[in-house]
Order: sequence, then C-alpha cells, then structure tokens
Amino acid sequence: MSHVIIPEDALCVADYERLAKEVLPHAIYEYVYGGGADEMTLRGNRESLDAIKILPRMLNDVRHGSTHTQVLGQTWRTPMMLAPVAFQKMAHEQGEIATAQAASALEIGMMVSTLASVEMEAISEQLNSPKWFQLYWQVDRDFNLSLIKRAEKAGYQAIVLTVDSAIHGIRNRAQRAKFALPEGVSAVNLKDRPELPRQAFTPDQSIVFQGMMSEAPNWNDVAWLIEQTELPVIIKGILHPADARKAQELGAQGVIVSNHGGRTLDCVPSAIDMVAAVREAVGSEFCVLLDGAIQRGTDVFKAIALGADAVLIGRPQFYALAVAGAAGVAHMLRILREEFEVAMALAGVAYVKDITRSSLL
Amino acid sequence: MSHVIIPEDALCVADYERLAKEVLPHAIYEYVYGGGADEMTLRGNRESLDAIKILPRMLNDVRHGSTHTQVLGQTWRTPMMLAPVAFQKMAHEQGEIATAQAASALEIGMMVSTLASVEMEAISEQLNSPKWFQLYWQVDRDFNLSLIKRAEKAGYQAIVLTVDSAIHGIRNRAQRAKFALPEGVSAVNLKDRPELPRQAFTPDQSIVFQGMMSEAPNWNDVAWLIEQTELPVIIKGILHPADARKAQELGAQGVIVSNHGGRTLDCVPSAIDMVAAVREAVGSEFCVLLDGAIQRGTDVFKAIALGADAVLIGRPQFYALAVAGAAGVAHMLRILREEFEVAMALAGVAYVKDITRSSLL
Amino acid sequence: MSHVIIPEDALCVADYERLAKEVLPHAIYEYVYGGGADEMTLRGNRESLDAIKILPRMLNDVRHGSTHTQVLGQTWRTPMMLAPVAFQKMAHEQGEIATAQAASALEIGMMVSTLASVEMEAISEQLNSPKWFQLYWQVDRDFNLSLIKRAEKAGYQAIVLTVDSAIHGIRNRAQRAKFALPEGVSAVNLKDRPELPRQAFTPDQSIVFQGMMSEAPNWNDVAWLIEQTELPVIIKGILHPADARKAQELGAQGVIVSNHGGRTLDCVPSAIDMVAAVREAVGSEFCVLLDGAIQRGTDVFKAIALGADAVLIGRPQFYALAVAGAAGVAHMLRILREEFEVAMALAGVAYVKDITRSSLL
Amino acid sequence: MSHVIIPEDALCVADYERLAKEVLPHAIYEYVYGGGADEMTLRGNRESLDAIKILPRMLNDVRHGSTHTQVLGQTWRTPMMLAPVAFQKMAHEQGEIATAQAASALEIGMMVSTLASVEMEAISEQLNSPKWFQLYWQVDRDFNLSLIKRAEKAGYQAIVLTVDSAIHGIRNRAQRAKFALPEGVSAVNLKDRPELPRQAFTPDQSIVFQGMMSEAPNWNDVAWLIEQTELPVIIKGILHPADARKAQELGAQGVIVSNHGGRTLDCVPSAIDMVAAVREAVGSEFCVLLDGAIQRGTDVFKAIALGADAVLIGRPQFYALAVAGAAGVAHMLRILREEFEVAMALAGVAYVKDITRSSLL
Ligand SMILES: Cc1cc2nc3c(=O)[nH]c(=O)nc-3n(C[C@H](O)[C@H](O)[C@H](O)COP(=O)(O)O)c2cc1C
Ligand SMILES: Cc1cc2nc3c(=O)[nH]c(=O)nc-3n(C[C@H](O)[C@H](O)[C@H](O)COP(=O)(O)O)c2cc1C
Ligand SMILES: Cc1cc2nc3c(=O)[nH]c(=O)nc-3n(C[C@H](O)[C@H](O)[C@H](O)COP(=O)(O)O)c2cc1C
Ligand SMILES: Cc1cc2nc3c(=O)[nH]c(=O)nc-3n(C[C@H](O)[C@H](O)[C@H](O)COP(=O)(O)O)c2cc1C
Repeated sequence: MSHVIIPEDALCVADYERLAKEVLPHAIYEYVYGGGADEMTLRGNRESLDAIKILPRMLNDVRHGSTHTQVLGQTWRTPMMLAPVAFQKMAHEQGEIATAQAASALEIGMMVSTLASVEMEAISEQLNSPKWFQLYWQVDRDFNLSLIKRAEKAGYQAIVLTVDSAIHGIRNRAQRAKFALPEGVSAVNLKDRPELPRQAFTPDQSIVFQGMMSEAPNWNDVAWLIEQTELPVIIKGILHPADARKAQELGAQGVIVSNHGGRTLDCVPSAIDMVAAVREAVGSEFCVLLDGAIQRGTDVFKAIALGADAVLIGRPQFYALAVAGAAGVAHMLRILREEFEVAMALAGVAYVKDITRSSLL
Repeated sequence: MSHVIIPEDALCVADYERLAKEVLPHAIYEYVYGGGADEMTLRGNRESLDAIKILPRMLNDVRHGSTHTQVLGQTWRTPMMLAPVAFQKMAHEQGEIATAQAASALEIGMMVSTLASVEMEAISEQLNSPKWFQLYWQVDRDFNLSLIKRAEKAGYQAIVLTVDSAIHGIRNRAQRAKFALPEGVSAVNLKDRPELPRQAFTPDQSIVFQGMMSEAPNWNDVAWLIEQTELPVIIKGILHPADARKAQELGAQGVIVSNHGGRTLDCVPSAIDMVAAVREAVGSEFCVLLDGAIQRGTDVFKAIALGADAVLIGRPQFYALAVAGAAGVAHMLRILREEFEVAMALAGVAYVKDITRSSLL
Repeated sequence: MSHVIIPEDALCVADYERLAKEVLPHAIYEYVYGGGADEMTLRGNRESLDAIKILPRMLNDVRHGSTHTQVLGQTWRTPMMLAPVAFQKMAHEQGEIATAQAASALEIGMMVSTLASVEMEAISEQLNSPKWFQLYWQVDRDFNLSLIKRAEKAGYQAIVLTVDSAIHGIRNRAQRAKFALPEGVSAVNLKDRPELPRQAFTPDQSIVFQGMMSEAPNWNDVAWLIEQTELPVIIKGILHPADARKAQELGAQGVIVSNHGGRTLDCVPSAIDMVAAVREAVGSEFCVLLDGAIQRGTDVFKAIALGADAVLIGRPQFYALAVAGAAGVAHMLRILREEFEVAMALAGVAYVKDITRSSLL
Repeated sequence: MSHVIIPEDALCVADYERLAKEVLPHAIYEYVYGGGADEMTLRGNRESLDAIKILPRMLNDVRHGSTHTQVLGQTWRTPMMLAPVAFQKMAHEQGEIATAQAASALEIGMMVSTLASVEMEAISEQLNSPKWFQLYWQVDRDFNLSLIKRAEKAGYQAIVLTVDSAIHGIRNRAQRAKFALPEGVSAVNLKDRPELPRQAFTPDQSIVFQGMMSEAPNWNDVAWLIEQTELPVIIKGILHPADARKAQELGAQGVIVSNHGGRTLDCVPSAIDMVAAVREAVGSEFCVLLDGAIQRGTDVFKAIALGADAVLIGRPQFYALAVAGAAGVAHMLRILREEFEVAMALAGVAYVKDITRSSLL
C-alpha cells in the first residue's frame, strides 16, 4: 500500500467514483454504484439535493467558526460519519482496517457493518473516532445478542439497526453484471451463525412474505433489542415521520433517514426530502442522521439546514478505498470537511447549530 | 417451442421489450411498440408513473402477507390480468394459445381480443385462470350478439367493450414502418362477419364523422349490450370520471381506465393520472382496472394505491411471447408478481386492500 | 410541376419540414425555420402546445359531426387558414399562385402577405376560399391606402394589419446562414412604393427608436386604417389581453394572437398560453385567431378549446410548397384537416362550438 | 491591434464565448468560463433568466424612446456597466487599457478590479465613461486606505466593495485545467501590499475559519470604509434582502445583486431570482445593480423589469477582448445595446423607467 498515491485529478468526491470505475472489476463497481430496479431513487437522491438552494449571508464575522457539533452527547469534529458499507475487502486487501485508519486520522466516526469483511474487533482496534456497530437483524434472537455483546466488548458506542432492507430489492444492474462475492471476501462476523432449517412452501405461499419477510425484524424486535443493551440504539432506514416517532417512543436514541442509497425499494422519496418532516415529528433533541448522495460540502450544509444532526458517507468511502487505500479515504474525507467549512464560511455561518431552514432559499 | 429458453439477460419486464426488438420483424415491432402521432401519450404513460413516489413504512409484521385480491367477486392470486392484445400469431406461431398457457400457469387472467388470431374457443380451452372476452363493437348488432353468445358458451366470464378506438388514431410510426398483417395472421373470430355495403360520401361529408364514426358504439349500444348477456360488462378505455359514472349508471360492472397504450388519440392524460378521480366518481365497490406502461412491481403498487383494483399488462405479453413463447410470458409475469410482492413487503404492506393513498408520498 | 409527387414518407406536417430541409438551399431553410435570438420563443411555441392535455369523452354519438365553423360571419369548412408568409417564390417557381390553388382545393382560406412575391391580383384569381390581405404598415399613409384599395378591388375580404414586427428582431440564425433574397424574388406588390428620404442621426439618437420605430404603426394609425376601408380589419401579433381589448374598442373586427412564430422579440409567451386571457378580455363574439407551431390536428383542437375561433398555418405551407408544390400544400392541409376530425371524433365532440375548456384536462 | 478585425460570425454575445474558446489557452479559458464546484449556480444564472417571459405591448408610440437612465445621480447612456474582471492581460496584451477604450467609445461605465493587471491610474486615463474602483478587502486597513486614496485621486467615482468571495470557492474546473497566472500578468495595484506574518494553526483550528476568514471584511469594516471616503460605496455580492437593507442602513449607496458569476459558493440562487426581493427591501430610490449571465438585450430588460437600475457585463468583456481587443469589446457592447433597444421597442416601452414588473408575464 505504501506506493499508492492520491491521483492528482482527485479533486472532489465525485472524482473518486470516476477513478474507482477504472480500477475496480466491472461487476464490483456495478454492484456498489447501482441501485434498485430503474434506479429512480438513486438518481432522485442526487436530484433532490441539487434542487435545494443555499441563501448566503455576507459580512458576518465567522473567524471563531468551527464545525464541532454534538451527537448523542458526544462532541464530533465534523457532522459526518462513515455509513456502514459491507465487504470492503472487495475494494482493498486491507478492507475495513484501512477505512478505520482513515476515519481515525480525520476524527470522523465509522459505522461498522454486520457484513464487514474483517472481524469487528480488529476494526475497532484501529478506530479512535466514534465507532458504532451496524446490525443486520438475524432470525435467531440469541445470535443477535451474541453480536451485540461482541460489539459492546469491542468498544462500540452505539448499535445501528438497519430496517429498510429485509429484502435486497430488485438489483438489476448488479444481476446484469453477474456480481458475486469474490473469493476470500466473506461475512466473517457471521461465521458462527446457526444454520436455518430449509423452508418448504405450499403453492399458495409466497417466498417473499412467508419466506424472506419471516426473517425480517419488526417493532417487537426493536423493543427487545433496546432492552438487551445499554448502548444507544439507532434505527437506520426510516423515511416516514411516523416511523421515526414510533422508534423514539420505543426508546431508540436516534434514526437515520435513508433509502439505503436507492438500493432497496425503488421509487421512494429522497432522504433529504423527508428529513424536515422527520425532525418535526421527533422534536429538536432527538438524534436524526441522514444519508444518500452526500458528495459536496454544500450537501452536508443542506442536510443540516433541513434538520439532520449529521450525515453519513456511503459509497465514496468504498471508491476512495479502491483508488488509494487508507490515504484515499482520508483524502476524500478531508475534501468533504474542507468543502463543508467553505460552505459555512461563504454562507456566513459560524457554528453548526446556526445552520437552519433560514439558511436556505 | 421446446427449445426456446429464457435469455439470461431477461431480468425485468423492459428487457423483454429490448429482446423482442431483436427477434421481431421491424414493421411488427414498430407497430406493437408505437403509439399515436407524436407518441406524447405513450411517453406520458411512463413519465406519469415515474413521477409517483411510494412512502414505505418500516418494521411492520408482514409475514402473513399475500397478494390475493377480489375482482368482480372472484379471488385473484395477484391484482394483474393480461390486456387484450390482437393478432398474437405475429409474435409466435402458437399465438394466443401460448399466452393462455402462461396465464394459466401463473394463475393470472387473460382478456381475449375480438381480433385474436386464434379462435376464442381454442384459447378458452387452455385458460384456467379468469377469462374475459374483449369485444370490438361491430356495426351489425346481430353479429355482436353472435360473438357474445360464442364467448358465453366458451366459458368467458365477462365481456369487455373497448370504446376508445373507434378510429385507430394517427399511427405514423406504424405507417412509416409500412406495417401490414403478415400472411397467415387474421381476425379468425370475425370470419363470419357480414360484409358492409360500401359507403358513398357527398363532398360535404367527412369520412371520419359520416364514415368511421358511424360504425362506432355509443351509450345506447352499451345499454343494449348489457341487456343481451348475463355476463358482467366492463367498459375499456375510459379516462373521464363522468364517463365512468355513466357506465356505472347504465349497469356496467366495471371500467378500465386506459388510453389504449397511447395508440389512439395523442395528447390525452395518462390512465394513472385519472384513476383517482375515476375511483372517486364510482365509489369504492365498483370494479376499476387500469392499464398503460405497467412494467414494474412498483407500478402495480402505485396503480392500486391510487384506486385501481388491478392492472392489465399489454405489450409485455407480446414481447415475451416473441422472445420465448409461453415460457417467456410465464417468466415475465412471474417477475412482475415477485416485484409486486417485494414492493408490498418493503413498503410494509401485508394485504392488497392496505395499499392506499397514504402509501404514497 | 406536373411531375412532382407527394413523397411517400410525408405522413404528417412535421415530415414536410424534414423533407423541405433536404430540397431547399440551406440559407433559405434557415431563414424560414429560424426564430429570433436564442429561439426560446420558437421552442416555447411547441412546448406550450405539448404541455396541454385533451380529456376525451367516450361513446358520444358524433355521426352527424362536422368541422364547419363561423368566422367573421362566413362559414368555413375547417377552422384553419393559411398565415401570411412572404416571398413564396423562394419555395417554388409558382410561389403564392400554387399555394392559392391548394387552399382553394381544400376550401381553406389564405392571408396574402404585403411581401408576396406575386401580385396580389394574380393570387386572388386563383383563390376561391376566404381571402384576406395582410398589410405591413408603410410610412407613407397614401401608399397604405393604395394597397388597401387594390386589395378591395381584387376581392380580398379582410385587411390583416401585422403589428408585432416593426423591427425584424435579432435573427441570428438567418444571419449565420447569410440569408438574402434570391434573385428574381421580390416584393412585387411594393414596387410603386415612394422612396423615403435617407435619415440622419445625431450621436445621441438611436437607429432603433428614432430610426426604425419612427416607421412603425401606432394606435392612431389603426384608427385611421379602420376608417379607410369597409373591410373588417384584423390586428395580427397581439399577446397582451389589454391590447386585444384596445383593438376591439377602436373598431377592429378581430385579433390574431401570435408571436410571429418566434421570429421577432425572443422570450415572449406562446400564443397558446395567452389566448384564453385574450378571449376573456374580448368576450365570446369577437374574432380571435391564433398561430404558432400548429402542426397536428390536436394542436388545432387545443387552440379552439382555449378560445380561438380558428388557427393559422405558417411555415408548413412553405415547406410543403417547396417539397411538392400545390399538391404538397393541398396534401399537408388535408392531413391537418383529417387529423383534426380524428381528434374531434376521438374526443367525443361533434361540432367545433363544442370544443371548450372542459375538453381539456 | 490594428490588424485584428471582428470575426464575421460574431453576431451575438455568446459568439464571443465560442470564439474566445478557440483563441485562448485552455487553462485560461477554463478559469474564466468556469464556476464553483458542480457549476449549478453558473448554469442556474442562465436558466433563471431563460425562464422569465416578457409580455410585450403593441402599437405604442416609442419614436421618442431612449435608453438613458439615472444611476447614483449620473445619467448613463445605457443601463449597463462593465463588471470588475481581474487580470485582463491574460486576454490581450493591452489588458484593461483596451477595455477602457472600448467602454469609453460606447459611453458605458467600467468597474476596475483591485486585481487589474494594469495600474488603475493608467486605466482611468483611458476611461471617459463612469469609472468605479472595485476593492477586494485587504487585511491591513491602512493598505485599503491607500488604495481608496489612489482611486479617488485617479478620478474614480465610486468604490465597489466585493464581499462574496472571502474564499475563492471550490473551483474544480480551474484546478483540473491547472490554471495559474501566466508570466507577466500580476496584481500590479497590490505590489506595495505589506507582507502578512505566516499563520500557525493548532490541530483544532481550521484554515478556513481561523485562516482565510480572518482576513475577510465584516460589517464593521464596511462602516469604517464608508467613513474613509467621500465617494459612494457600493456593496457587491449581495443575495439576501436583509443584507441589502443592512448595507443601506450603514450608509452604503448601493448594492450589486450577484453570485459572482457562480464562481464562489455553489448552489446559491441566481441574482435575477433575488433582485425583486432586494428592491423591495431597499425601496425605489436606492441603487441596485445586478450581474450574472447577462448576454442578450432581453436579459437586460428582464433585470430592470424586476428592479435593477442597471446590469453588469462580466465574462463577455474578457472573451471579446481576447477575440478582437478593444474593437471586440466595443462591438460586443454595441450588440448588447442594440439588442436592448430592440427589446424595448418591440415590448412597446419608450423609457427605461417604464420597464416594470408588468412588462413581464
Ligand atoms: C456497497 C454498499 C454496501 C452497503 N452495505 C450496507 C450495510 O452493510 N449495512 C447498511 O446498513 N447499509 C449498507 N449500505 C447502505 C449505506 O449505509 C448507505 O445507506 C447508502 O450507501 C447511502 O449512502 P451513499 O449515497 O453515500 O452511498 C451499503 C451501501 C453500499 C453502496
Ligand atoms: C399490439 C397491440 C394490440 C392491441 N390490441 C388490442 C385489442 O385487440 N383490444 C383492445 O381492447 N386493446 C388492444 N390493445 C390495447 C391494450 O389492451 C392496452 O390497453 C394497451 O396496450 C396498454 O397497455 P401497455 O402499455 O401495457 O401496452 C392493443 C395494444 C397493442 C400494443
Ligand atoms: C418565412 C416566413 C415569412 C413570414 N412572412 C410574414 C408576413 O409577410 N406577414 C406576416 O404577418 N407574418 C409573416 N410571417 C409570420 C406568420 O404569418 C406566422 O405568424 C408565423 O409563421 C407563425 O406560424 P408557424 O409557427 O405556423 O410558422 C412569416 C413567417 C415566416 C416563417
Ligand atoms: C475571470 C473573472 C474575474 C473576475 N474578477 C473579479 C474581480 O476582480 N472583482 C470582482 O468583484 N468580481 C470579479 N469577477 C466577478 C464579476 O465581476 C461578475 O460578478 C461575474 O463575472 C458575473 O458576471 P458574468 O456572468 O457576466 O460573467 C470576476 C469574474 C470572472 C469571470
């Protein structure tokens, strides 16, 4: 890795997408880049952000400005975190280890996926910034418990339960590219998972409802999960304000407004178009994060102006990792942080808390 | 047929369109694909669906979910039916026979066109799912009667009167491709049709009004038709809510909101943009179906959310038939059914009756 | 001319534009096709029409239908007329003579331009349908008078004063193509025009205001004109409802809502977007015509639904003339008439007076 | 210079952009043409203007019309001025000297940039039309003072303080083209600027907030500046109406509604979309100018109709200078003036003060 250098035409986050396309095997790139079905949600994520306009104030004194912010009672250097992105060894031989190093260097937090290609304990060791464990619900309650206990022991500070992808969606692009996990990359954190008995279906049953969805978590499972751990539980994949409210009432500590990067159900709203209503539903104190197509400092600014406490960065971490390893991820995050500072400064805002609805047109 | 296999890149309904373009003679493809005039209605059908957003709910328990639904007092496995599509021998030597076999296999109903290229009795024999006969009005009332009586005798369960295409519209694309019915394909169900006396026009008369439109059905004909049969009569090709109401008052059992796939008058609204108003006009109990550009499970979901009881699938059946015969049609329908189940599951809806306006943004 | 035949791919009005591009000298095509400046008005004319949707009624009895309509107390076979289009010898050696023959054959009226390339008397002889003379205001009042008297004598039934093009606008496309009148083509009807003294400008004066606009007509000239003739005077080039009202108050018999096909001031509204407000301003009895991008029977239908009594056809006459002479123009007009009949029939409307706002979505 | 001639295909302002692209070194063209980040603001400037429609009045008598107008108590021949554009020697060896000659010839004013590549005194000598000095705030207050005093002495009639570009923004296009100031081109007016002590940052500090923004002007600096000079002070780079109001209250004589041609913060509103609100905030007497994508006479008309007193022309001066020196700039300005006169005449407006909101749709 020591020889990888940052390409000189990596000037913005989107550059990493373009460069990754060149270095990654086609099927992997297509899998990561793609969304569900006709990718309308995927495109919509970007279009919704683009449609929002920042209304800047001039001549404010912002020389004491800072991007520090409070999330779940912790102080973050920047209102950004790495989204859980599975199987990072597909991007780079060191996988999540390299990503964790970059996150630490930039003081930016990381959500480690259930489907990480490296043991969560090993990742945690490299991570000095906020570290959260993302849980994909497992049919076997005990096995969920064992994952949570491992996460607690490894020092993770929150549990993120992802709820929007009980089914993977209709990923035609990945299918077309014949994507399959490359050899040597696997869900190592699930290697002790008890095997499920093979299901039989009557002709009248559906493999969707009676099959896959019988393994999906529901609100009872959320309540149970919250009881099992002292760690804050965050629900990832909320779009409807009423669902955010329900999570809050059940004792969750936060929600992540997200459509999973357009990868599950197609034709759903952009997170950025729902975040204001979600914030309204849960009040100003509840933790609300957001992800989906965040690629510019101005995107971060817009998300916060509409009610998010912070944003997650998904695909760009994978692309930067593929292009230039830990250095790439760190560089990508630094670009984003600086762009965000520039956005604040040129909009005339000194502190994250001052980025509000009235900062937009 | 035994050698035709499903192409491995047939992953979604639109793939069948692409693949059919490769196997079909140009003129036939253009005829089937095309719409009227500038094809604004054709494109509009797709664009209107694309503009609708589903607002999903998370963590609902849908493990008892099912797509079964009630249409005209019958239970359907899925809220989908094959639209009447004429002359299917142009797609495949077995024509409507193959389509009927596929429909039966998937437990999806079929509307058999007056212009089927196979005798309606032979088709009916292959069809174990809902079977409806689609009537193109014939100038000679007696001949209409003979068609209806044949349909009744052959076991058809409803009569669908198509009312939006007294004139074919201005089909420039088909004209450009010099489309003509291929040899060996004809409207075999009309072979006993009495010949019409050739009309003469005064200079002041119009071949449109005094010619073609003098052969078109009107509301009196609808009333007459309803009297002639015990079968429910469904009016196909309604866009205006007041027309739906009128059909209901005259004793029709349902309407199909449709612009004939953009093939007749150009510049009319998409069915999906009218269906909510139609539903409002006729109340919740009346049968309202819809067609036009249904290509994804999410399209089916949207149509139902806006008030349709079920949707019809038009061109895709022809494309799939051309590509892979009965197996192709069955595969295409299975894709659509599974996508619809996935849409329901990921939207958090267990039953068709729970797909409502509030399932949309 | 006897050998020119209708190309078999001339199926709709737009086909004539495409075909004319092939046969016309580049500079002439560009001149005719083009609009002012960035051609936003030109494109807007089309886009505005495209955005309007017809809401058809089914099962009406229209077998007595007809396109006959009343304009200025005359009965027209179809609510269409040929717009004044200058210098038609650029399209065809017979110029306006051929156009007039075609118009007569189709019983469609023609507005003959001041800038016709054939004497107005000769054109009139060929014209059995409504014939109106279009006047471009001449600085010399007496010369206007002599033109009007010639028109009266030649049998023209109305005077159309064009008021939107005192200045030609910024015609960059025509300039780029280095358009100039070809040899042998000239404004023969103006050959007796008294020469104007050459103007001198002080440095502080503007060739626009103190030059060109000093030759433009104003409301006083309109009043004067109306006094000079028994013929009805129609004002062409109105967009603002208040101007239509003013014309009406001064005694004009009608207005033509038009932006001159996007050829004068760019960035103005489409005629179709203003016609409803104009109709509202002048009441239901006043003659309101409209032009701009009318290319389909559905366009005619939309214009009438929004308040026009009839529409004018501009460029298509020139294109059809270039492609196939009188036969081409006749064919083009027949296409348009038939498309209009089809639009009425499929929309469920029997008479022109029944095409109203409620025929649209 | 004597041999440069106006290219015959330079017919409108945009032509100069196209032609400049051919003659300028790639990096310079990209630098000048480009905007911040994804250039959404850059494109938005054009799109916002395009979306506005002029509603013309016909038959008004405008033969006494004129484009003269009052700005800051002076009479301008046309409501246009040259925007401050830095380093014009990159376009042409004579740089701002040639531009000033052209401006004088057309009686159009010029704002001379702090970053002019020619001494402000030399430029002033060539300039007989309104001359304003544009100030980029300097950390050292005394140095600001010395610049203002030079400007006063050199005959400049107003001071324009640019406030929207404390940071240059994220200029990815220029970075990609590896833009750097060519040899021989420099900010000659700043050659006596005292060197700043190099700053050191703690790890927790930000080079944006604690670095660059510590050199930016704030409202206190504006107040100070106004006290230092008898000349009117104009604030350039305002978008928010409240900022315009604040500038007015502090004693500024005017504001320039501008987003710096999309070159600083991306995703901000177009000036044309904010100017009406700014005008409303400051009342009818305060000087409000506007820039951004003004390329057509109709653009000037629209800006004035929405509340601007006059507009600035930025990039086109640079392009015209590159293409044909002083003659090019003069030609470009003449085109714009004539187009503006044509727009007024065809819209039926005789005087600049009569261009109002009601001149638009
Ligand atoms: C390749 C890939 C893998 C992902 N894996 C996970 C995962 O394991 N767990 C999870 O909750 N979300 C996962 N996501 C979703 C991301 O966390 C995030 O919600 C999404 O990518 C939106 O952000 P983006 O637009 O910045 O990519 C994945 C996304 C991608 C693209
Ligand atoms: C080739 C073709 C033939 C058709 N034949 C008939 C027909 O015989 N009777 C009828 O009522 N509709 C007919 N239709 C219309 C369809 O039933 C349906 O309304 C239309 O295709 C819209 O659905 P789609 O967008 O899924 O194709 C036909 C459509 C096509 C494309
Ligand atoms: C080549 C050309 C010549 C024209 N000459 C005249 C004319 O002499 N008098 C006039 O009033 N309008 C003239 N017009 C405008 C037309 O009458 C009409 O308003 C315009 O073309 C809009 O109709 P269209 O979109 O169908 O072309 C001319 C238009 C074109 C394209
Ligand atoms: C190459 C270039 C240099 C500029 N230099 C300055 C400058 O020195 N001072 C300033 O206030 N604005 C500067 N601007 C901004 C312009 O004054 C103006 O606000 C902007 O270009 C918008 O106008 P346009 O769209 O007509 O180019 C510059 C713009 C460009 C393109």
